[in-house]
Amino acid sequence: MRKPLLFLPGPMQVPEQVRVAGDRPLFSHRSSQMSELLSKLEAGCKPLFGTRGDILFLAASGTGSMESAVVNLTSPGEEVIVIVGGTFAKRWADIATAYGVSVHTIDVDWRRGATLAEVDRALKQWPNARVIFHTWSESSTGVLNDMAEIGELVRSQNKIFAVDAVSGLAVSPMAMDDWNIDVVVAGSQKGLMVSPGLGVVAIGARGWEKAQQSNTLRFYFDWKKLKGAVPFTPALSLLLELDGALDFIHAQGMDKIFARRGRVADQIRNLVHRSGMEIYALKPGNGITGVIPLKGFDIPALRRRLENDFGIQIAGGLGKIKDTTFRIGHVGHLTEEEVDYFIQSFERCLA
Amino acid sequence: MRKPLLFLPGPMQVPEQVRVAGDRPLFSHRSSQMSELLSKLEAGCKPLFGTRGDILFLAASGTGSMESAVVNLTSPGEEVIVIVGGTFAKRWADIATAYGVSVHTIDVDWRRGATLAEVDRALKQWPNARVIFHTWSESSTGVLNDMAEIGELVRSQNKIFAVDAVSGLAVSPMAMDDWNIDVVVAGSQKGLMVSPGLGVVAIGARGWEKAQQSNTLRFYFDWKKLKGAVPFTPALSLLLELDGALDFIHAQGMDKIFARRGRVADQIRNLVHRSGMEIYALKPGNGITGVIPLKGFDIPALRRRLENDFGIQIAGGLGKIKDTTFRIGHVGHLTEEEVDYFIQSFERCLA
Repeated sequence: MRKPLLFLPGPMQVPEQVRVAGDRPLFSHRSSQMSELLSKLEAGCKPLFGTRGDILFLAASGTGSMESAVVNLTSPGEEVIVIVGGTFAKRWADIATAYGVSVHTIDVDWRRGATLAEVDRALKQWPNARVIFHTWSESSTGVLNDMAEIGELVRSQNKIFAVDAVSGLAVSPMAMDDWNIDVVVAGSQKGLMVSPGLGVVAIGARGWEKAQQSNTLRFYFDWKKLKGAVPFTPALSLLLELDGALDFIHAQGMDKIFARRGRVADQIRNLVHRSGMEIYALKPGNGITGVIPLKGFDIPALRRRLENDFGIQIAGGLGKIKDTTFRIGHVGHLTEEEVDYFIQSFERCLA
Repeated sequence: MRKPLLFLPGPMQVPEQVRVAGDRPLFSHRSSQMSELLSKLEAGCKPLFGTRGDILFLAASGTGSMESAVVNLTSPGEEVIVIVGGTFAKRWADIATAYGVSVHTIDVDWRRGATLAEVDRALKQWPNARVIFHTWSESSTGVLNDMAEIGELVRSQNKIFAVDAVSGLAVSPMAMDDWNIDVVVAGSQKGLMVSPGLGVVAIGARGWEKAQQSNTLRFYFDWKKLKGAVPFTPALSLLLELDGALDFIHAQGMDKIFARRGRVADQIRNLVHRSGMEIYALKPGNGITGVIPLKGFDIPALRRRLENDFGIQIAGGLGKIKDTTFRIGHVGHLTEEEVDYFIQSFERCLA
């Protein structure tokens, strides 16, 4: 099998030092070694979330992290607001609906993301909603939503603000506490550069308080079981990879990591413009570039050619823009050579 | 960090070829490559479960697999019977209770496991119970429960039989279909010799039928989302490890694997007897040896000495036998040299 070069929204290539860290020998999860590892990982994650809250690790995909937020923060019949600007934002609504929550959705422009005015209107329209679910980095569109003003508004009305950062964490700077976000959920296989299967959840004091009031039936995703405890066998090899990834990130410095991710994003966006295509997101983040080619462009043929001739995987569109867009992912670590090779290969496919 | 030699009930050491298989490059989980991998894994798992049913893979720990069985097979208020012969059997009851199920427990002798007569009595006592949760290999005691007769009884009364095989699968031969079991749950980090974080669930036709009737609120663990689909990012590196593990198992042949596991279990049991200690389980499986030392024996000191002087980790007791037993785990692949080293080290600690 030729090694595919992944320009996907996730999973991304696991850097060599992360892989090596994950290959360290396993050990008992009921040991002081385990507690020390978890403390170290928690300390390493906090600055990436920008929080002084708690960090929990779940053996689960990003969707499991999202579900944990829904089942801990809400009760059946309770009203919530979900801001829907893409397929993954819609997943908040799907999960909450599955759990019997009364879900009010705001459908915002998928290219632009949510505005303060839209959220303000929704809060006035549904004053009984106590939790607002939003998406920071929308993986289906590439939009990175502005959070600070919306967070301030939500907090001013004493609501709980829960945010999906699955494809944004460790890609762009996040400031959970400063942005008045109570709960942030993330996954391992994007900016954290770890293999998929590990959920990471950050919970502030208000998030914990709300979780105490939930009467949703839950067990595996019950946050209180996971705080300072190892109730179930953790995904140990993925936690070891995360340890390597955090060492990698903090050794370089977060600023340098974010700057590098930004430079790669610029290179990809320049490529898209040069190729006569449009960037889907009006406010794109550093991790995913949604692309609108000219009408009639054969997207499947481009993806096939990239894969077959150049060994590069990119992603298709999702949801209502499934057939009219494609996505170039660059959430993780990419060398200059890999980016150059991608650009050259992409241009040759279009030539 | 010295590499610890794990004689735990799990996680176990990941064999080199499994590790190498897991280190293969990641790829898009929305690809034909992914479907092919899942088909291969399903085909490889079926003979280990002894079933022609479906195999689902969850990004979750063993407890997540158990929870998936509870939320798919039951509805709130429904009566179920849980056969409790240890800490993990009790977990069935805890999960079902958390989900509002009306749980009837049969407390059986932890050393002996369940008898047909006990289950028969329970079925008569609670005729409205439609699902029976049982444990094949009880990880807290080392008991491997006889399933064939109980399965026949449960089937004869048209009940659903759901079984935890987390620490027994790929350690001892299982015959799910022949034993009339409808659902079997397992995890990656025991006999499958894979890093923890991957749940494996086998579901027969009657299990699927019952799942259609459940109205328990669920999303991430909803089986019907997972059948023949990849709705969430899977734990890809663990699936790749599993691929390596199944190749390893089937290249040697299941019979040879089971025979080897049995020989190791015999060596460990002989060691325990020779050391003047007692085997806790009256019907032990091949994977876990629960040990009762003489009264007053300092179990923590033994565990400390094994770890500090010999680099070997064994496990303590759990539940009501927490302080009076310890557990030697040998669920996975162990070389002759590792077993010999363990035996010598154990004997030196007692000398």
